[in-house]
Amino acid sequence: MHRENTASLRIDDLSIVRGYGIFDFLKTVDNHPVFLEDNLDRFFHSADQMDLTVPFSRQEIREQIHMLMQANTIPNSGIKILLTGGYSPDGYTIIAPNLIITQSHLERNVASEKRGVRLVTFPYHRAFGTVKSIDYVMGIKALKKAKEAGADDVVYTQDDLISECPRANIFFVDKNGTLLTPNDDVLAGITRKHILTIAKNICPVEARDITLTDMQNAKEAFITSTTKNITPVTAIDNINYGPGAGPLTRKLQESLEELIFKNYGIFPPID
Amino acid sequence: MHRENTASLRIDDLSIVRGYGIFDFLKTVDNHPVFLEDNLDRFFHSADQMDLTVPFSRQEIREQIHMLMQANTIPNSGIKILLTGGYSPDGYTIIAPNLIITQSHLERNVASEKRGVRLVTFPYHRAFGTVKSIDYVMGIKALKKAKEAGADDVVYTQDDLISECPRANIFFVDKNGTLLTPNDDVLAGITRKHILTIAKNICPVEARDITLTDMQNAKEAFITSTTKNITPVTAIDNINYGPGAGPLTRKLQESLEELIFKNYGIFPPID
Repeated sequence: MHRENTASLRIDDLSIVRGYGIFDFLKTVDNHPVFLEDNLDRFFHSADQMDLTVPFSRQEIREQIHMLMQANTIPNSGIKILLTGGYSPDGYTIIAPNLIITQSHLERNVASEKRGVRLVTFPYHRAFGTVKSIDYVMGIKALKKAKEAGADDVVYTQDDLISECPRANIFFVDKNGTLLTPNDDVLAGITRKHILTIAKNICPVEARDITLTDMQNAKEAFITSTTKNITPVTAIDNINYGPGAGPLTRKLQESLEELIFKNYGIFPPID
Repeated sequence: MHRENTASLRIDDLSIVRGYGIFDFLKTVDNHPVFLEDNLDRFFHSADQMDLTVPFSRQEIREQIHMLMQANTIPNSGIKILLTGGYSPDGYTIIAPNLIITQSHLERNVASEKRGVRLVTFPYHRAFGTVKSIDYVMGIKALKKAKEAGADDVVYTQDDLISECPRANIFFVDKNGTLLTPNDDVLAGITRKHILTIAKNICPVEARDITLTDMQNAKEAFITSTTKNITPVTAIDNINYGPGAGPLTRKLQESLEELIFKNYGIFPPID
């Protein structure tokens, strides 16, 4: 184990020379790792899709996380599990991936979860949509465009369809109170998954292709991620949904709050 | 200066966590850095396009390369100039890029330059085509598909157009003996540039959109790169061009040979 500021990779790692790697990210709330098993499911899925062999078993990774949490004692944190392409003699062929697990402070942005964010559309579709790849080149470039347009981030669109934000899933509420979210070739967000479950007891739910017309006609919009929880979207381009959270968004925020921040006893401690 | 196997980057570098970086690659022949100024032009172009500030001047980079060559004494080598997104406090924002220059042995694959390679088409178009980005995720995935199909590598196609190989530019010779190569949003290969110059004294040249029909009707095909020089393409999918190099390909190989491997006195030593 290393302090994060001394941990390093040799420069022949395929993440550095070829941008090749995957990761997953979960949070701990009062020392409880939230949705860990979901994150491990997705982590192994991403590794498999990108032909990366995980050098430890699922149980070993659980144990490493446990050790890290005990060593660091950061009750509210983000834990990143990173799997790179590894050191490659020819600078191209995957031989033995490197696994890195880090933990750092994670502060909840409650103000943003109340106030919401502004988005602008950006023409792009992530390759390997279901994989949590380290490839954020377009996300970083796009954020610059968003800031220039006075927005907080972008949402990717291609042809007539809307897919996801660089670091969040997106949801809409239509005029009938149905919850909509893109479903095909987007990241299987863990927060997204649990919202879909919660919402089934509250309103009609449709996970399907979402068109620009759906976006135009929606009454509410919000994005979801491990760090953002449910954050309202107040505007996309010149379409306004705000201010703040609409009524269904607020109801879902309360249910997610209950699940993650009040009943976290349901998240089993790591053995 | 470090031995390559000890040089490292901290794991919060944006190359490792976000796949963000650019590079350039040149070769030395008998201690002469070949086309160095072209590589420096492209390196600074890539950096600029990706919002990365190069922490050294062009002359300082020349001097670093000179020192590296003197320390290593590898007459025939590859030199990589890598600029990563750098250490980022929030894991997303570019603050101060890291520059790394490495030199390693480079063996010429003369057999492959004679025999040629087989390609298969693969549907993809690189984002930021003119930038030599470290993003080779699709290239590595595609190589696996190529091997499964009994080929050596892929060539990217999108809609009706052919663009480039993951690590090489592509050329065709049509039935009238005109040299064709894609021109829009592809990497400005240094070998490609010099072949276009050489070819103007030998045959008609068209750098323009190249369609699948052009590919189908071509009489010869070859790929070019710093390591591959001119390597004939013997087949793409079920289209055969081989065996070995066609007559115009061979003529261009001889001219490039003359330029790079026999007259390298024209490459100025680095001060």
